[in-house]
Amino acid sequence: MRAAFMFGAGDVRIEQIPDPVLREPTDALVRIVRSCICGSDLHPYHNLPDTPGGTPMGHEFIGVVEDIGTSVATIRTGDFVIAPFAWSDGTCEFCREGLQTSCLHGGFWAAGGIGGGQAEAIRVPLADGTLVKAPATEDSALLPSLLTLSDVYGTGYHAAKRANVTAGDTVAVIGDGAVGLLAVLSAKQLGAERIILMGRHKVRTNLGVEFGATDVVPERGDEGIARVRELTGGHGVPKVLEAVGHMPAYEQAVGIVRPGGVISRVGVPQYEEAAVGFGSLFGPNITLTGGPAPVRAYIEELLPAVLDGTVEPGKVFDRTVGLDEVPDGYRAMDQREALKVLVRP
Amino acid sequence: MRAAFMFGAGDVRIEQIPDPVLREPTDALVRIVRSCICGSDLHPYHNLPDTPGGTPMGHEFIGVVEDIGTSVATIRTGDFVIAPFAWSDGTCEFCREGLQTSCLHGGFWAAGGIGGGQAEAIRVPLADGTLVKAPATEDSALLPSLLTLSDVYGTGYHAAKRANVTAGDTVAVIGDGAVGLLAVLSAKQLGAERIILMGRHKVRTNLGVEFGATDVVPERGDEGIARVRELTGGHGVPKVLEAVGHMPAYEQAVGIVRPGGVISRVGVPQYEEAAVGFGSLFGPNITLTGGPAPVRAYIEELLPAVLDGTVEPGKVFDRTVGLDEVPDGYRAMDQREALKVLVRP
Repeated sequence: MRAAFMFGAGDVRIEQIPDPVLREPTDALVRIVRSCICGSDLHPYHNLPDTPGGTPMGHEFIGVVEDIGTSVATIRTGDFVIAPFAWSDGTCEFCREGLQTSCLHGGFWAAGGIGGGQAEAIRVPLADGTLVKAPATEDSALLPSLLTLSDVYGTGYHAAKRANVTAGDTVAVIGDGAVGLLAVLSAKQLGAERIILMGRHKVRTNLGVEFGATDVVPERGDEGIARVRELTGGHGVPKVLEAVGHMPAYEQAVGIVRPGGVISRVGVPQYEEAAVGFGSLFGPNITLTGGPAPVRAYIEELLPAVLDGTVEPGKVFDRTVGLDEVPDGYRAMDQREALKVLVRP
Repeated sequence: MRAAFMFGAGDVRIEQIPDPVLREPTDALVRIVRSCICGSDLHPYHNLPDTPGGTPMGHEFIGVVEDIGTSVATIRTGDFVIAPFAWSDGTCEFCREGLQTSCLHGGFWAAGGIGGGQAEAIRVPLADGTLVKAPATEDSALLPSLLTLSDVYGTGYHAAKRANVTAGDTVAVIGDGAVGLLAVLSAKQLGAERIILMGRHKVRTNLGVEFGATDVVPERGDEGIARVRELTGGHGVPKVLEAVGHMPAYEQAVGIVRPGGVISRVGVPQYEEAAVGFGSLFGPNITLTGGPAPVRAYIEELLPAVLDGTVEPGKVFDRTVGLDEVPDGYRAMDQREALKVLVRP
């Protein structure tokens, strides 16, 4: 089969590799119907050192189960399934608490001998815990929206849940990528009354407004902070959802958060150290929360509104490519020609 | 009157200064019945640059109202009052939300023209918002416990509240100073089932056990982390209360916290930057919270159990000095001869 591999910064190629096979009795084989390229895939696209053997790519996919291991109990061949971006057993103490990204026996796609989602098929470990069945077919118009449940929608939702967004809240979202826009949608679903979207790409922020943003702030840095404070009576925003991961976004969050408020991060931090002392988080009693979203915990909750069309998170996809065009999909996202690229293997 | 001033690191003196007078119609004058020396007073005791004019000291006191300004409505001359370590108007949006440390018109003792608590008397701004009346007299045996409501008890309680400690919880407290010990007491009051106290001063940890600690871990660093993980099935503690403020305590907290857990800081950070990236807070979805405790918000809630003797937070005081002996009180606390020094002006 064909699968995308990255061999170094900017070097994505489609390789012919052996078809995946069942290895463990808890495995399932899934033929991938749709996958996509993630904003977080751009980090290795910028930084990956030369990797002669290549590293598989992609961690978001929906598909059809082609075969199952002997101990798989809840998933059947022929099922249409959504895969969260982390695989997990569904039974350990962390899974039971809804923190499947910390599953004691789980892991992530495209690592440790598990393939990536930008491929024709994939071996899914711990299929019972990992996969979620959905009442969909391969020709459904809902495929893009269903695919967002693999990562970006659940990740935006995690930002809002961790910030405890509730009815009537004022929320700011930093970042107009797919996760930021779906954090807007999530905040809206959770009842936020005012949603300030910080982003400067008009096409994207327009979609953000469609998803529920009430204000758009294109300014960055001190100017952006001043603008948000001006919009919020001078004291800042009680709940800030940070969907970028770079240090300027963190600084922006600290700059606009209201005393006693929350900064909820879902952009993968591209830094390890940051300001948390008296002058930033401690003095004004700011809470810093978030992390990799346990999207598995949210799929069942978010699915109904996707199925009945109440929400259309799939609008974040603005380009569709075949597997062979995946390298150009990376280029297009990197150059901001495309917001998020859907892959039809 | 006499009042304590610090003129540089290690240099505390008792000075004769003019008696405080009412300046604003919202002021009250309070004769101080008891005050004390705080662990946080030791930071300037170590670091204060030479300050020829001296800086007033002390932010914890209880006393009797001697006079009130013309617009003070709820406090009367003769009232016995508890003063929180921040003064506040009680009416702004932050005060109404219980975050009096961020009061729009408030401030802190011993700063900006307001005197310190290690003195015979003090001018209290915004008396209606700041002071809490208590049914006590100057000869009450409860004075030490009442005084802890000024800071250390409310601060320990804030750590536990911000970590959302509830019935059945497993909690770790880092630090066996007065705040750490009262964080133990607070966690116990909130229903924590297991309370691991990290501290190595036997006399103090013994008091911690009396307050409710179920385990004491004297080890520090990697050894301490390993010990706590061993006590908690390998995965760490869901709720960590950090009552020290130095970087090793932060690292300890990150080392022992369970994925999905909370680190609640009330020790004033002696650092500005710290690890918060994928390898520390983000990857395991750790929440970092806490800050200066709005103890004003907690006094009414904590007072009844103090008055009826259910709790005795005043046990953290193990030495009493007169005002003239305050300099020696600092020395004793700094050399760990005393846990916390009560001052009888």
